Amino acid sequence: MSALEISKRGQWLPPSPIRKLVPLAEEAKKRGIDIYHLNIGQPDIETPPEFWQAIKNYSLKVLAYGNSQGMANYLDKLSGYYRKCGYDIRPDEIIVTTGGSEAIIFAMTVICQPKDEIIVFEPFYTNYNGFAIQAGVKLVPITTRAENGFHLPSEKTIEKAITKRTKGILYCNPNNPTGTIYTAEELQRLRRLVLKHNLFLLADEVYREFIYEGKYVSVMSLEGISDRVIMLDSISKRFSACGARIGNLVTKNRDLYRAALYLGQARLCPPTLEQVGAAAAYDLDGGYFEKMVGEYRRRRDIVYEGLMKIEGTVCINPGGAFYIMAKLPIDDAEKFASYLLTDFSYNGKTVMVAPGPGFYATPGKGRQECRIAYVLKTEDLQDAMDLLKRGVKAYNSR
Amino acid sequence: MSALEISKRGQWLPPSPIRKLVPLAEEAKKRGIDIYHLNIGQPDIETPPEFWQAIKNYSLKVLAYGNSQGMANYLDKLSGYYRKCGYDIRPDEIIVTTGGSEAIIFAMTVICQPKDEIIVFEPFYTNYNGFAIQAGVKLVPITTRAENGFHLPSEKTIEKAITKRTKGILYCNPNNPTGTIYTAEELQRLRRLVLKHNLFLLADEVYREFIYEGKYVSVMSLEGISDRVIMLDSISKRFSACGARIGNLVTKNRDLYRAALYLGQARLCPPTLEQVGAAAAYDLDGGYFEKMVGEYRRRRDIVYEGLMKIEGTVCINPGGAFYIMAKLPIDDAEKFASYLLTDFSYNGKTVMVAPGPGFYATPGKGRQECRIAYVLKTEDLQDAMDLLKRGVKAYNSR
Repeated sequence: MSALEISKRGQWLPPSPIRKLVPLAEEAKKRGIDIYHLNIGQPDIETPPEFWQAIKNYSLKVLAYGNSQGMANYLDKLSGYYRKCGYDIRPDEIIVTTGGSEAIIFAMTVICQPKDEIIVFEPFYTNYNGFAIQAGVKLVPITTRAENGFHLPSEKTIEKAITKRTKGILYCNPNNPTGTIYTAEELQRLRRLVLKHNLFLLADEVYREFIYEGKYVSVMSLEGISDRVIMLDSISKRFSACGARIGNLVTKNRDLYRAALYLGQARLCPPTLEQVGAAAAYDLDGGYFEKMVGEYRRRRDIVYEGLMKIEGTVCINPGGAFYIMAKLPIDDAEKFASYLLTDFSYNGKTVMVAPGPGFYATPGKGRQECRIAYVLKTEDLQDAMDLLKRGVKAYNSR
Repeated sequence: MSALEISKRGQWLPPSPIRKLVPLAEEAKKRGIDIYHLNIGQPDIETPPEFWQAIKNYSLKVLAYGNSQGMANYLDKLSGYYRKCGYDIRPDEIIVTTGGSEAIIFAMTVICQPKDEIIVFEPFYTNYNGFAIQAGVKLVPITTRAENGFHLPSEKTIEKAITKRTKGILYCNPNNPTGTIYTAEELQRLRRLVLKHNLFLLADEVYREFIYEGKYVSVMSLEGISDRVIMLDSISKRFSACGARIGNLVTKNRDLYRAALYLGQARLCPPTLEQVGAAAAYDLDGGYFEKMVGEYRRRRDIVYEGLMKIEGTVCINPGGAFYIMAKLPIDDAEKFASYLLTDFSYNGKTVMVAPGPGFYATPGKGRQECRIAYVLKTEDLQDAMDLLKRGVKAYNSR
C-alpha cells in the first residue's frame, strides 16, 4: 500500500511570501524590537465610520443567506459607483465575491480548464500563484524590469508567450507590487492582442482610486472587447476594509456571468453584514478619496525620496497604488529581509519588507528587489526609510 | 479564429437546483400567493443576541486582514467547543474558512488532482457538485434508498466504486438532504474502507447538534484514522447564522493542514466580524442547543406525520438535521415542485419544496423524491403539510 499523500497541487501550494517572515517578526518583537510593517498592504487608514454605523444599525434578527450574486441594494450601489467612474455597468453584470480573491478564482475557473494558461506580467501580486494552483491553471510569466518602471514589454514579446492553451491575459493596474500605471498605449497593446488571439482580458483594478499622477485608463474604456473583459475589484483598499472580504467581478459576457453565478450559488453567498457596510461606504462623496489620495501621495514621496538616498537603488517613481518595488544594492532580498528582523535594529526599531522573489514566477528573478507598502503615517515612514538605509549599509558590511 | 468560449467546467457548472425555482416563486408572489419555503435550509430561528452584541461592540477602527487560519481567540473557542463534544482538537488543527463551502473546496483541492475521484452517497448536498467541478474532481455516487432510510450500502457495494483515482469518501452526518444519522456500525464500515484502500475520510458534520433520537457518532471518535480524517464544519445552522459565512475544517494530518493553510493564505483571511460574533456564540451554554433541538423535534414530527397522511409516501422518520427526503406518489418531482408554484394554491397559499433529482449525480434518480426542510414554526409547518397533501392530490388529478 502506498503512503497516504495529499495531492500534487496541495504540495505545490506556496506559503505566502509576504507572511512567511511573520515568525521572525514575532521573535524580534519578543526581544522588544519595534517593527515598521512595510511588508503587507494593510493600510492604517480608518475604515469609514459610515461603514461601521451601517453594520451597527443592521436590525434583522436572523443572519440569513443572501443572494449568491450579492445583495440587490449593494449591486445597485456598485453600478452607481461605476457610472460615476464613467463605466456603463448594470447590476446584473456584477457578481459580489468574498474578497477580490474569490473574484480571481472564479474568473480563472470559468475561462480555463486544468492545464490551460494565463499570461501575467511579473513581478505580480503573489497570491495569483495560489489561485492558479487551486484552479489548476498555469501562469505564464513575462518579466518586466525595474529599469523602465516595470512597464509592459512590446506586443511581439507578449505574443511569443501565447500558446494554444492560453486563455487570457491578467494584469493589475495600478499595479501591485510595482505601483506602475499603464499608459493608454500599453492598454491598446493588450486590447489588440486579446482580439487577435481570441483571449479574455482580466483586469485587477482594486487600486483604481490610488492615482498620484498621470492618467488612469480602465479596462472598461477599451472599445470593442466588452465580451472578453473581466474586471476584478474589491473594497479592501478603497475603503480600508481588508477584513471585510467583499470584492466583485464584472463581465458583460453572459455565458461567463452565468458560470460565475453558478460557482457563486455553490458557495451560497458572500458575507451579508459587510455588504451592508460597503453599500454605505459607496455613498461617501469624492472628498473621501481626495483626502485619502493626498495622504498616500505624501507617503509615496517620502518612500521614494528615502529610496533615492540609498546609493545604487534602481526605481522609477511609480504613479499609483501604494507600493514601490525597488531594486536595492543587496545580493539577496530574502536574506536581507530576514536579516532586518534577526540581526538588525537601530534605536530598538527595525523595518519589515516583502522580498522580491515571491512576486515572480520565474526562479531567480527579483533577487535584489523588495516591495515596500507605504501604509503607515508619514512620520513613521520617514523613520522606517532611515532604518532601511541603515539596514542596507549594515547588511552589506556584515 | 474559433469563437470566444468559456471553459468546459464553466459550461458544466449546474445552477443550484434549490434556487432555480426562485423565479417561479417570485411570479407566484406577484400574483399575491403566500409561499411556505420548505425548499431551502434557511432556519427562521433568531441568530443569538450574543452574536449580534459582540459585533456591535467591536471597537477597532480599521477592519484589517486577520490571520489566514482564523483569529486566535476564535480558534481557541472552537477547540474548547470540540473538547466539550468529546473530541481532542487543538487550535492548530483547525482552519477557519469562509463558510463550510470553502472548507469542502479546500479539502477537495488538497487531496485531489484534477480528474481524481471522491465517493459520495446520493442523494447528497447538491453543492458538492459545484465544488467538485470547481476543483476538477469527479464525484462517484453510490445510491442509497428511501426504502431503508437512506442508510449506507454494504462494504462490498462501496468497495466496487473504488478505483485507482479514488482519493476519499465524503459523507454528511446527520445527513442533508435525508436527515439520516449513520450508526456506529456504518461508520466502522467507512473506517475499514479508508484504511484498507488508503483513502481520506471527509465528514461533513455541520448538523452535529440536530439529533432527535439515536446515538450520534462523530468521525472524530473513530480510532486509528486520525491522519486521514477531514472534518468539515460551520456555524450556519448551529447558530442560525447562514449569512455569516464562517466554517472551518479540522485535520490532524500536518501536510494537509499546511496545504489548506496555504490555500487560506492566498485568499488572505475569512471575514473578521463574524468570527467575533461566532466566538461569542460558542460561549452559550448547553441550554441553547437543548431548546433549539426541542423546537426542531416538534417540527420534524409535524412534517413526518403530515407525510404519513399522504398515501403512497415512502419515508422512514429520520433522526437528525432538519430535512426529510420523502418519496412521494408523484411521477416527476421537478414538474411537481414547479406545479405547486405555477398552478396550485389553496386559500391563497402554496408550498415550495426542493425536487429530488438535484441531490443525485446519477441521471434519472430521485424523480419521485422531494426534500423538505423543516425550518418554519410549527403552525406554519402544519399548514404547509396540509397544502402539500392537497398539492399532491391536485397534481395527480390535473
